[in-house]
Amino acid sequence: MICIKNQTVSVGILGVGTVGTGVAKILLTEQRLLESRCATRFRLKAVADVDWSRDRGLDWDGVERTTDPNKITDDPEIDIVVETIGGEEPAFTLITRALRNRKHVVTANKALVATRGRELYATASEYGVDLLFEASVGGGIPIVKGIREGLVANTIQAIYGILNGTCNYILTKMHEEGLEFSEALRQAQEKGFAEADPTLDISGVDAAHKLTILASLASSSVVDFSSLHVEGIEQVTALDIAFAKDFGYTIKLLAVCRSIDGRLDLRVHPTMVPNSHLLSAVRNELNAIFVRGSYVRETMFYGPGAGQDPTASAIVSDLVDLSRDLRLSEGERFCNRTVNAMAQAHTIPLEQISNRFYLRMHTQDRPGILSEVSGVLGRERISISSVVQLETHERDEYVPVVILTHQAPEAAMRRALQQIRQFPFIRGEVVCIRLFSEAEPMRSGK
Amino acid sequence: MICIKNQTVSVGILGVGTVGTGVAKILLTEQRLLESRCATRFRLKAVADVDWSRDRGLDWDGVERTTDPNKITDDPEIDIVVETIGGEEPAFTLITRALRNRKHVVTANKALVATRGRELYATASEYGVDLLFEASVGGGIPIVKGIREGLVANTIQAIYGILNGTCNYILTKMHEEGLEFSEALRQAQEKGFAEADPTLDISGVDAAHKLTILASLASSSVVDFSSLHVEGIEQVTALDIAFAKDFGYTIKLLAVCRSIDGRLDLRVHPTMVPNSHLLSAVRNELNAIFVRGSYVRETMFYGPGAGQDPTASAIVSDLVDLSRDLRLSEGERFCNRTVNAMAQAHTIPLEQISNRFYLRMHTQDRPGILSEVSGVLGRERISISSVVQLETHERDEYVPVVILTHQAPEAAMRRALQQIRQFPFIRGEVVCIRLFSEAEPMRSGK
Repeated sequence: MICIKNQTVSVGILGVGTVGTGVAKILLTEQRLLESRCATRFRLKAVADVDWSRDRGLDWDGVERTTDPNKITDDPEIDIVVETIGGEEPAFTLITRALRNRKHVVTANKALVATRGRELYATASEYGVDLLFEASVGGGIPIVKGIREGLVANTIQAIYGILNGTCNYILTKMHEEGLEFSEALRQAQEKGFAEADPTLDISGVDAAHKLTILASLASSSVVDFSSLHVEGIEQVTALDIAFAKDFGYTIKLLAVCRSIDGRLDLRVHPTMVPNSHLLSAVRNELNAIFVRGSYVRETMFYGPGAGQDPTASAIVSDLVDLSRDLRLSEGERFCNRTVNAMAQAHTIPLEQISNRFYLRMHTQDRPGILSEVSGVLGRERISISSVVQLETHERDEYVPVVILTHQAPEAAMRRALQQIRQFPFIRGEVVCIRLFSEAEPMRSGK
Repeated sequence: MICIKNQTVSVGILGVGTVGTGVAKILLTEQRLLESRCATRFRLKAVADVDWSRDRGLDWDGVERTTDPNKITDDPEIDIVVETIGGEEPAFTLITRALRNRKHVVTANKALVATRGRELYATASEYGVDLLFEASVGGGIPIVKGIREGLVANTIQAIYGILNGTCNYILTKMHEEGLEFSEALRQAQEKGFAEADPTLDISGVDAAHKLTILASLASSSVVDFSSLHVEGIEQVTALDIAFAKDFGYTIKLLAVCRSIDGRLDLRVHPTMVPNSHLLSAVRNELNAIFVRGSYVRETMFYGPGAGQDPTASAIVSDLVDLSRDLRLSEGERFCNRTVNAMAQAHTIPLEQISNRFYLRMHTQDRPGILSEVSGVLGRERISISSVVQLETHERDEYVPVVILTHQAPEAAMRRALQQIRQFPFIRGEVVCIRLFSEAEPMRSGK
């Protein structure tokens, strides 16, 4: 019987807020469990935070507590630095400093990995250490490991993600209780599923950060965050959700990454997902990532996208991965190989992508109007799959008209919308929501 | 910049049927992709099968083809043996021989790992090599890696799996098209989702094999396959599915593993899953495994449970894991540590478990009957949550009565059923289906 050598790995944590405290809690209370599972004793050597007045409910006995983060980035005894400060600075500077001191780094900082990934990957690679970020996407869901290792044999063809718990909670409430956006947002804030300032979430930017990271993984290259098309859920109305329901769809904020002829179609926007698709059944604050690979075909990973314990669970799985790496000599290390800091992903502008569309407008109730609207669509070669016009019994009333189209180029739809919006018989906004389609990605002519 | 050393790993495949051919296809066609992702050149050195008359559509140039499996188990140049023969023998003898020759083994053989796991884990451990089996559960879904590594910080509290694609396909057809079992089975056979002899699948035994493996992983110990309670789907009728629908449930063949006070509640049986739960939305031949961990809380992994390419995708992910291990010295190896061949899991007999129940019986349509049935339940302290009795307009007609109960001990329900079945006013079988409940596991008195 061959015994496995036990090792000790020293960890420092930068930022002991919600997530950092969660990581410390696991390292301090689950030492025996982890040791039995990976023959590694994780020693929480030091933790840095600006505020030590707050009680975090942990016994810090034997753990160095400091307000100076460089005591962690520069400590020669520390093998792995966990960054749970969040935001761009000082996180970026501290991670870079730790990497240059040849420490492995684990971070949950999606905004940072999404926007400064190229520099971080390059520094890690230059100094022969790893930068892991399982917790940056999908909270506790092991999606990074799933794509990087579980689907290692696959070319990733498409990813469809529900990546923001706040938006999914709001949309679920709107869908199931008929609430308007503002009321659903208020309830989400009350229940702690939305921040006091929810802008980053409801604007789609948070989901776009996560999509950038997934797209990097899927393409093994650096993705420019700025190249993504991002729309939030602020404009989604209870009326559109009700129509979606009638048509058998659920509106989700979907993050899309599709690989088309070596380029990436990357976007985040409200999307009508057919109720026959598993993504439509992902409710409340939960996240899910649907991944299509060349061999595995469809897979989905589901779970909590945030929260102290789930996020800490993901960070600790990164620590365990690194503990395996730490047994290897520098030139044999593995983890960080999936994103090549030197390779640049190429994206396809949304204008060149085809989608199915839902259009909703309020028109006067008189003959010929549908013919004028459909005439515009026809001239743009956008073919209609279904139309609903509701009856009214009031004179001069404006009635909602809803149109579902077949697959059509985004550019054509934009031209059509511009024309439709100018019709004098239309009152208010013409709402346009894209439909989820797993049809073979189509590219329009130019 | 530190470069990663490339290595070459030699692989042999035992059994080149559907899955073995899939593995060979990936190793022969995706060599560059794999090399770029894990700095390992996988060399398919040899493949063994009894039949070489069949064209497998692959170019075997440079690959040794043999009918003698020992040419692979004994080849000193081969690092990893892939076993894709299936069945107990000769697979068991060949795997054991390969392990004793200090070769890592990757297998998709769920029946073998479930029933002979103890011996296989022990041999692997004795000879300091790994036995990996990602493909044995959930086909292409990276569920073994997900539990073993992604959720490494978690104590696994519960697993609920849809683990058999044939059963899920049949139940989906029954649910969505109102088919009876026999007709749905016939369609599944036509479409290739059920074998000519579907016994192993529809009896629940295949799902139970997979559950045994998951339970071993979750408990880090050996689980006796014979200790599982297993029921198949042969008795599920269109009528019960229709009632389930009315109550807001979908009937699934669910494999359950719950950890209760250090013992395991293990069973496979038709289960009414509430439509608000994501598992109810897993359709057709797809599989899903819902895992509750101490930190991550609820997660779910979804994808194809079978098929050449998905299964091969899982096997290759094991090969890549082993390629990482092969860089380590023997005493540092990691993969196989999750199942301890010396530890024995303890199971709880079903009689000691509480569940909610669905009962359906056909009774005469006369006063007092419901009172007699509910009297039996009351005396067994089984509390009723809902009753439906349908009207009839025919004299002497038997009418269906459906009862949903609150949580009640299995033993009490068995006693009640025995009494109810003896009532003279009942015609035919009294159907009893358990309801899915994520309520805190309850154990009955004795």
